[in-house]
Order: sequence, then structure tokens, then C-alpha cells
Amino acid sequence: MANQTTPAKTAITPRRDEDFPEWYQQVIRAAEMAEPSDVRGCMVIRPWGYGIWENMQHQLDAMFRATGHRNAYFPLFIPLSYMAKEAAHVEGFAKECAVVTHSRLEVDAEGKLVPASPLTEPLVIRPTSETIIGASYAKWVQSYRDLPILINQWCNVVRWEMRPRIFLRTTEFLWQEGHTVHETEEEARAETKQMLDVYETFVRDHLAIPVFSGEKSESERFPGAVQTLCLEAMVQDRKAIQAGTSHFLGQNFARASGIQFHSRAGTQEFGWTTSWGMSTRLIGTVIMAHADDDGLVLPPRIAPTHVVILPITPKEETRAQVLAAADKLAGELRALNFFGAPIEVEVDRRDLGGGLKNWEWIKKGVPLRVELGPRDLESGNVAVSRRDQPVKAKELVPMAELAGRAVALLESIQENLLARAKQLRDKHTRVIDSKEEFYRFFTPENSAKPEIHGGFALAHWNGTGEVEEQIKKDLKVTIRCIPFDDSQNPPEPGVCPFSGQPSARRVVWAKSY
Amino acid sequence: MANQTTPAKTAITPRRDEDFPEWYQQVIRAAEMAEPSDVRGCMVIRPWGYGIWENMQHQLDAMFRATGHRNAYFPLFIPLSYMAKEAAHVEGFAKECAVVTHSRLEVDAEGKLVPASPLTEPLVIRPTSETIIGASYAKWVQSYRDLPILINQWCNVVRWEMRPRIFLRTTEFLWQEGHTVHETEEEARAETKQMLDVYETFVRDHLAIPVFSGEKSESERFPGAVQTLCLEAMVQDRKAIQAGTSHFLGQNFARASGIQFHSRAGTQEFGWTTSWGMSTRLIGTVIMAHADDDGLVLPPRIAPTHVVILPITPKEETRAQVLAAADKLAGELRALNFFGAPIEVEVDRRDLGGGLKNWEWIKKGVPLRVELGPRDLESGNVAVSRRDQPVKAKELVPMAELAGRAVALLESIQENLLARAKQLRDKHTRVIDSKEEFYRFFTPENSAKPEIHGGFALAHWNGTGEVEEQIKKDLKVTIRCIPFDDSQNPPEPGVCPFSGQPSARRVVWAKSY
Repeated sequence: MANQTTPAKTAITPRRDEDFPEWYQQVIRAAEMAEPSDVRGCMVIRPWGYGIWENMQHQLDAMFRATGHRNAYFPLFIPLSYMAKEAAHVEGFAKECAVVTHSRLEVDAEGKLVPASPLTEPLVIRPTSETIIGASYAKWVQSYRDLPILINQWCNVVRWEMRPRIFLRTTEFLWQEGHTVHETEEEARAETKQMLDVYETFVRDHLAIPVFSGEKSESERFPGAVQTLCLEAMVQDRKAIQAGTSHFLGQNFARASGIQFHSRAGTQEFGWTTSWGMSTRLIGTVIMAHADDDGLVLPPRIAPTHVVILPITPKEETRAQVLAAADKLAGELRALNFFGAPIEVEVDRRDLGGGLKNWEWIKKGVPLRVELGPRDLESGNVAVSRRDQPVKAKELVPMAELAGRAVALLESIQENLLARAKQLRDKHTRVIDSKEEFYRFFTPENSAKPEIHGGFALAHWNGTGEVEEQIKKDLKVTIRCIPFDDSQNPPEPGVCPFSGQPSARRVVWAKSY
Repeated sequence: MANQTTPAKTAITPRRDEDFPEWYQQVIRAAEMAEPSDVRGCMVIRPWGYGIWENMQHQLDAMFRATGHRNAYFPLFIPLSYMAKEAAHVEGFAKECAVVTHSRLEVDAEGKLVPASPLTEPLVIRPTSETIIGASYAKWVQSYRDLPILINQWCNVVRWEMRPRIFLRTTEFLWQEGHTVHETEEEARAETKQMLDVYETFVRDHLAIPVFSGEKSESERFPGAVQTLCLEAMVQDRKAIQAGTSHFLGQNFARASGIQFHSRAGTQEFGWTTSWGMSTRLIGTVIMAHADDDGLVLPPRIAPTHVVILPITPKEETRAQVLAAADKLAGELRALNFFGAPIEVEVDRRDLGGGLKNWEWIKKGVPLRVELGPRDLESGNVAVSRRDQPVKAKELVPMAELAGRAVALLESIQENLLARAKQLRDKHTRVIDSKEEFYRFFTPENSAKPEIHGGFALAHWNGTGEVEEQIKKDLKVTIRCIPFDDSQNPPEPGVCPFSGQPSARRVVWAKSY
């Protein structure tokens, strides 16, 4: 068969260093994770991609529960008048709102199907749910005794995209949005930070991606927020991707929605609210952080399948024996617990030819591949390949020992991916003190490959929007975050290299998705 | 405090026998499960209601996986032209389609926020996803080797409702929809039946609701289907609620979407497809099947909390001791496994007064309530109340024995609810052979309470739509299902009492939601 030829030296064409954006699309296609739909800007998430999302949901949800949050569900539709309640909010989202205007279809005089029954008030499809959830909270909150409200929602949202890119920027995407109300500013600020910490733990320990965490500058804040905290990851083209945000909303949305309570002091007060979210965009971040020129590379904790067993059955007479051994091995592995759940094992019994099957699983990024053929039955060994190592690398492991080593192997892959990502980030993060060096750092040597530039710059800033704007205009570089003052990032006063003015601390600059 | 007075004899006003529809709304409100939203026809599912849905999802999803299905996600939007592809389908759904016509908001000359940027082709919000999923399947299926495709989707759908009723009929609702493609008609029919069986097992063993299963008559079929299989449950007002449907779609949707494959025989063939779904409507069914005049009654398998411990702390000096004992007991219970997961225990430490706290949990339907006060510490007993028994009933159980009995108690409640529901159904299901008796059976004695009528009738039918239509017009009674011919329901030829014509078997007639 035509497609059973030996794959090229790398399974993905082009390679990362040839054309990073196209490589990204091809990794997704080769892994059968997702594809663009005929509806402009929307995607179809195929089982392999959705399985990754389910694992992310499941693990993050447990962290939300452990911090006292419960899930609920609010309407998809937001009346136009609700959107208008918070001025900055509607200004921020007006350009990307899908609007429902009719509630019926009919066949017109020309036999064409057309919208009918116009609505009295058009409905916006939620781009985010502060205003619609706020309307409920206003009813639920009467007294300080009703606080805090700690609720999360898993749902789809719609933000009309002019330049969609699969997973990273799609018109419809899946996400979670936490919405909380508190009695005091202090509590709400603590919640905002707590949820950022939850995200940071999840992104580091589950997705194997190290991040910079901090605060957004005013220009990059969520529309309507007082403060936006964020995580910023570096991916392999050295650009930044935002990996979760947590917003302190002050009393802005409480005023807009009328969330008021009878305080301990006997006065009427507005609640202090927060919101925080992460989305299917993180799947794109995982791909760009870990995949290689042979396809997807999955952190074991979020892999839908941890181990694939590839029985090699060249001869009919040994076939049954090989398959039986594969099933026995699968059973042993499935009885093991990796990170709170059974190890997921697939035995690929298809008659496709070992090479072709092997390459399919490489491209899907399965952490461990185990080849098992008639000769292995004789020797008692199986050939084990780790996806974080070169695809040809194999280790012979006695079949009887594999179950005993499987969890440690998966943990080792998980750790190795994080170490590799950290190495990449550290290598391409530079402390910069002069404007010239800064501009050179962000100017690609080859204009055909804008992705090959410096990376993250830690540079001083005078705190003004003017400097931000100039640099964005010149280099398409923005402040990704203003790190928190802590032991890891102690404040270090200095001089802004762009204005010569004083600066309280270095901030993180980068090109971003 | 005003609201700490002893509740009335029943916690819900009105009682079931006074006003069933209003009782239903009040049970939902008292349990804080859900509420209507300001967006007409849409609901807010509060944490207690959503927790029930999460348990249902989790358990049903495991059954889907065990039968080889995987989850995926397809776009919310369906181009108008896709809807039009299957004639019966668009005719069935045209009257209830929410239509997106604009992708932006702007402020008009009068300062009013209005829809802007009209779309070239309007988009329908999915009322069900056969057509949009079919477009993907047409790309994925080339050869018989690509079959079967066994995919499920958990998502929100929108069907514009003129007379919404919370959970039972809402404009937006949550559901799952399975969509499969098969090589042969036989396989697709087997899949359709298999998934109905999965639903029946789930509804019976998890929701404690017995059902009639069978086939829909032509007039009640899913728009575009060749055959619709369904489950029909009787609730306490003796009406029927459909609790899951499974459709054999023949090649209708494959033709409409172009799902074609190269067959084993070398020919091009259309695939055979199925779809099947159940929704948040089932939560309404659970309420109507099990709740009583004191509020919700939850089958333990889907209860978000299985046991609530109510510490009674009248005196400050024994408070710490009582709370410590409550926490210890909670820890023992949480270590137990009920139906594959830890027992969920809540210790209600609020200073509200024991009576008020107790009534809150009664109204929420928690299966087991455990009261623990200073005197119990001395006696070593706790007072245990089962929600399936009268609210005043208590059993004294030695504290040291409760953990050993908890699982059995939960299982006993689960079984008792099913037995009770079965008893109700059997009591109000009657074999009827004359038209007069049939009409009398379905005519309420008191026209102010239309819910007090006979129940389900097993009567013969000549197989024509004319008879169905006449009876629907006269009595608002329809054929809920045509039972399968099996050992439980052997075919029994007879005479249709409405037409005098021959009938192959009895069918199930009822008023329905």
C-alpha cells in the first residue's frame, strides 16, 4: 500500500526550524487532535485532543474543589442590556460578540431558508459571564452570611475571531470561569492570588511548563478589572503564551450588577468580586512547548493513553501467542496507579505493519511505546521507547520487570519534559539594560523567520503606557507581566533604558501569541 | 430570628396532591437546585443541581466508554445551509432555532448598543448536531476500515421554547449526544438498541426509576430518523416523561452529509448512522419520580452529598468535643467506598439551630442525616434518619457501628426508591380493552386537577396515525412507546378498541410531559 513506505527522517513536514506556524498545524493534524470546521473560526476537537482536555479538566477541577469551589451552570445568552452595564467591559468585548436576533427559521417566497421571528432584545452569546452571573449573584447575596460565593463554570464561550488559529485563538472555545464574591477587598485579593497559584501549580506539575507569574500592566488588563494576574509560558519559538489569568474586579461588577449585602456593621455594601479562567488554548501551549519534529509529545499526566503496546505478528503461527502476551502485559499495567488513576494502556492489534503503527503513536505523543514480537517471547524482553527520547532509541526491558518500572518511567518523562522546558526558557531569557541590546534581542536576523529572535527580556520600565506603546509599535513586543515581589523575584530598583527614568523593578517583555 | 420558627407539617407548599406543577417548582427552589434566569426560557443550574448532573454525567460516561465510545467536541454553530440538507430534519427543528446574524456590537447614533457586522450566512445554534457532525464524518470516512465511528459529545443545545418549564423544557439545556457510523444496517440497528439498553440500566440502577422501553410510532419519531427507540418513565402525577432516546437514522443523514465509504466489495456505499441522547431533563424526572411533600429525595448514587452530619452544640463547653466527634465520624465515612467512589460527607457546623439545619438538608434530599449532640457523646449513639422514611423517624445507632453500616444503608435507600417507583407505576398501569374504559381512565374527576387521572394504559392499536390523532385530540393522550417483543412483553395479538381492527400487540398510552 502506498502509505506504508518508511516515513521521512522526521514525521512532521516542515520541521520547527523551517516554519514554526505550519509545523504547529501539521503536528495537530498528524496527531488527529483537532481540525478547523467549515464554520469560520470554529474547530472540531477530535477524541485524541478532547481526551487531553478531559484530563486537564478532571485534574484542575479537583484543585478547585479542594479550595472550596463548586461547579454550576449559567445561561449561554446575555441580554444586550446586561453587556452594557459595565462600560469598560462592553467596550472590550463589543468587537467580538456573536449576536442572536431571531428565534425561528422559515422558507421565504423564493424557497430559501431564512431567519424569522425577530427577538425584542437581541442576545449576545457569552464571551465571558461576569454580567450574566452577576445578575444571579445579586439575587443570592443579601447578607454577609451569604458570602463568600465560590463558584466555577465549565462551558463554551464565543469571541468572534478575525484571524483564528486552532486551539490558540478560535471563535468558539471551551474553558472554565470561576466567579467569586467576597465580603472584603482583602479576601477578594487573596482569592485572586490563590487561584493564580492553583493555575501555576497545574501548569508546572501537570503540563510540565514553567511560567513567569505576575500582574498585567494597565493596557493588558481584562476589560473592567482592577487588577489582572497572569501566567506567561515560553514556547519553542521563544514567544510567550498566556496560560491562565485571575482578575481582581474590585466593586466594579458588583456595582454594575447590584451585588449588595448587609454588612456586619449594619451598612449596605457592594461585594468584592473576582474571576479567573483557563481554556483549550492551553492545549495549543502544550503542543508548542513540548512537541518535536516527529509530532506531539505529551506530559504523561495529561496523556489519554500512557502506554501503547505494539504486538508484532509477522507469522500466523505465533500471532495468538504474541497477542496473548500483549494482553497479559496490558492487564498488569492497567492494575497500576499513576497519579491517582489507573495507567491507560492501548494494545494496537491492527494489521498495519509495525513501522506504520509505531509512527502513528509517535505522532500522537504517547509517553511509552512497547514493542513485543515472537523473538521477544523467546528472549523474555520487550523493547521500550520513551517519547521524550529520540524515536529510534529503545531499551530492552525484561517483560516481568516492566510493570514494576512503568510508573517510574512515566514520572521520569514528566520531570524530564519540565526540565527541558525550563532549560529552553532560561537559555532564552536575558537581563537587558540598554535600549540597543533590547532592540537587537527582538529583531529577527532573517525576516522570513520572525520566530527566531531573542526570547524573554527582563528589563526595567518607567511604568508608563507611552513606553509600552512605542515598543509595541517598533518591535511587536509587550510587557507580559510585572513579576510579584517575592524571594524568587526580589524588587531591584533601576533605570528604564527607554526613558532614562527610575524603575521599581524589572518586568518581563516578549513577543506573544 | 424570624425564619427559625418550626416549619409547617410539610416543608413544601403546596403539597403534591394540592397542585403538582407548583409543588415541582417549589421543590426545586427549596433545594436550591436551579432557578429561571432573566433570559426567557433559560435556567441557572445552582451547585446542588449541577452536582447531581455531574454525577449523572460521570456514571453514564463510564458506560459509554465501556461500550467503546470516546468523547469529542463539535461547533456550537450550524450554517443555515447544513440545516437545510435533510428535509424532515429542518422541518422538525425550524420553529425552535436561535439564529446568529451579527458578529459585533456598536453604539448607534442615539447612543444605543445595537448588533453590527451582519454575517454572510446566518448561523443556527445547534438544536442537535447531526448535520454539523455529519460534515466532519464525511471527511473522516473513506473506507470500511474507518468504521465504525463511535463518538459522544457533552454540550449545551438550544431549542426555542414557548412554554418553558425548569429542567423539563428549557430553551438552553445540557445533554450528551452520541453519533455513530457503521458499515451495515444490522450493526447500526444493534448500536441503536445497545445504547437504549445502556440508558435503561442507568435510569433503573442509578436513578431508581423503572421504565417502559420500546419504539416510537411514526408521529413521535425524531425528525429524519427511520426508527426512534425510547424509555418512558411514570412520575407521581401518573404522566409519562421520556427518559432518553436512541435513533436509527438509516442512510438519511449519510446521504444528506455525504458520508460514503469504499466497501469490502469494492463499491461506494453510504454509511448507516445512529444518534442517541439524554439531557438535564432527567433531573426533572428524578424530582417528579422521588421527591415528596418535604422536598427533594435523591437516589444515593447521584446525590452530591450522601451523609450530612448535624452537630448539635447548645452549650459552649461541649461544642469543641461535639465538633471533634463529628469530624472523626466524617473521616471514617469518607474512607468508605460507595459505588466506586468515596462517600461524600458534609459536616454542617453553622450556628443556625438544629431544626433549621435539619430541614435544609431534608429539602435538599440528602440520603442520610446524622444528629450528634452532647448527650450522644455520653450514650455513644447517634440519631440516623433516612430520607426515604418519614422525616421524624430516627434510628439510634452506636457511633462505632455507623461506618460499618453506612454503605448498606445507602444501598437500601437506593433499592427502596426503585421499589417504590415500581409500585407506583404498576399500581397505575392498567390493561384496557374497551374504548369507554380507556376514555374514563384518562378523564380527571376534578377538572381543576388534570394530573389526577388513570396513568398508563396498555391497549391495542391498529397501527394508524388516524387513531393516534383522534385520541390525542380527545384526551391529550399519546402512544408513549410500542414495547419490543421479548419475554417480558410477549406480543399478544388482539383487537384495537378504537377501530375494531386487528392489532399485533398492546402499546403504552399516557399523557406526557
